[in-house]
Amino acid sequence: VKKAVLENLLDKNYASVSKKIERFISSYISKSPAAGVAVGLSGGLDSSVVLKLSVNALGPEKVAGFILPSSTTPEQDVKDAVSLAESLKIDYKIIDTSSIISKYLEVLSGSTDKIRGNLVARIRMSILYHEAAIKNYLVAGTSDKSEFLIGYFTKFGDGGSDLLPIAGLYKTQVRALATYLGIPEGIVKKKSSPALWKGQLAEKELGMEYEIIDPILVLLDRKLTARQAAKKLQLPVKDVIRVQAMIKASAHKRKIAEAANIEK
Amino acid sequence: VKKAVLENLLDKNYASVSKKIERFISSYISKSPAAGVAVGLSGGLDSSVVLKLSVNALGPEKVAGFILPSSTTPEQDVKDAVSLAESLKIDYKIIDTSSIISKYLEVLSGSTDKIRGNLVARIRMSILYHEAAIKNYLVAGTSDKSEFLIGYFTKFGDGGSDLLPIAGLYKTQVRALATYLGIPEGIVKKKSSPALWKGQLAEKELGMEYEIIDPILVLLDRKLTARQAAKKLQLPVKDVIRVQAMIKASAHKRKIAEAANIEK
Repeated sequence: VKKAVLENLLDKNYASVSKKIERFISSYISKSPAAGVAVGLSGGLDSSVVLKLSVNALGPEKVAGFILPSSTTPEQDVKDAVSLAESLKIDYKIIDTSSIISKYLEVLSGSTDKIRGNLVARIRMSILYHEAAIKNYLVAGTSDKSEFLIGYFTKFGDGGSDLLPIAGLYKTQVRALATYLGIPEGIVKKKSSPALWKGQLAEKELGMEYEIIDPILVLLDRKLTARQAAKKLQLPVKDVIRVQAMIKASAHKRKIAEAANIEK
Repeated sequence: VKKAVLENLLDKNYASVSKKIERFISSYISKSPAAGVAVGLSGGLDSSVVLKLSVNALGPEKVAGFILPSSTTPEQDVKDAVSLAESLKIDYKIIDTSSIISKYLEVLSGSTDKIRGNLVARIRMSILYHEAAIKNYLVAGTSDKSEFLIGYFTKFGDGGSDLLPIAGLYKTQVRALATYLGIPEGIVKKKSSPALWKGQLAEKELGMEYEIIDPILVLLDRKLTARQAAKKLQLPVKDVIRVQAMIKASAHKRKIAEAANIEK
């Protein structure tokens, strides 16, 4: 059943999906006072797909790419990002964030990999918004539906953007869409990683592969209980409960901050 | 009528209002896994009120203040923030942001006061979240209802927070609440300024005083048309239209980024 749920999930008309997303991007930009979109390019799957869809939607002259490596960024990622930007003929810029990160760490309290990783994601957001504002562009976010739902993003970091072109697609669907879009295989097959610290791998950190997470998310979205979903997917209930807990714990990341109600 | 609308607006039971906000803060923290709140202190009205309410709600040992000056911060603001933090006996820290700002500007494209100002606000958010995470605290935002509605804040900068204690109160109400709470007069009477560049003053930048903006916001909230509101307040229609335009243009700042819908 697990395989069937996943196959059903992946069985999309990707030509139609990409057209819908491209229309979303061009309609969003045309309704706003902005002239184009800025995309932070990591050399990974999600940002490559968002870049390609943006170029399809707006043309390369209205899309800018920003490659923002730090000391923990694999060299291959920068190469992949540059080569995609070049092949799509967009305006792109590489801004090394190492010296900015070091400056923060000189004045901030000592912390963990995770806290420092969130800082790096927020530095990238700050740079992206700065460069986008200069061009009068909006920032296109690169979160997919899986990451968005389990909260696998930094609040006001990579989670800080103006529009979310691929947040309607699960990670496994984004991978299939990438193949449809002709994204280079090296990017499509790359293991997902925010690269916020050395050796960080999404599925290792999450303790589960997206081929498992996505079917769980689909069944939970259909309002199955943890027990029902686990049974259907032939998985331990604790795996489903784990995903449920991630959804719950990250709810605040998908909402505007709550305001005190002084009327009631 | 303008005066009557304003007086009606200000005529609140501030004892009850502060109790409601304090209950909001303590209930929010007790429902979350966090141990307290971090507040960015500017020495201005809003952050001073949020600090005082947080201390009332949680006790000084669960509140941390962060004073984050740059080269454009008036010295008096730092003094006012420090003296309030000391008088409330909270743990506070001054982190000068100048060297971080300079580091960004070394690698970023040249920009305007406004774009640089937004960068500074995002740097402050990044620092606040870093220090808050180390303490397992949430970040209390300091936007008031007037600023929130007209969008007078930086998206993912000072607009980036976990809870908004005073976003249910218009600026003029916050001022009255501050007096009720015994906030020093020097802070209560200080002209509102984000101090993101030298000489920046909120009401100058907005082109209108909050004593005008707030009654307009109240009437628009009651669904009066621009013409009706202007007539009632004996103001030029263009003033009301200006406020309406600010509300509309900043709608995106009060929402989670829109995702492409691939189902429809």
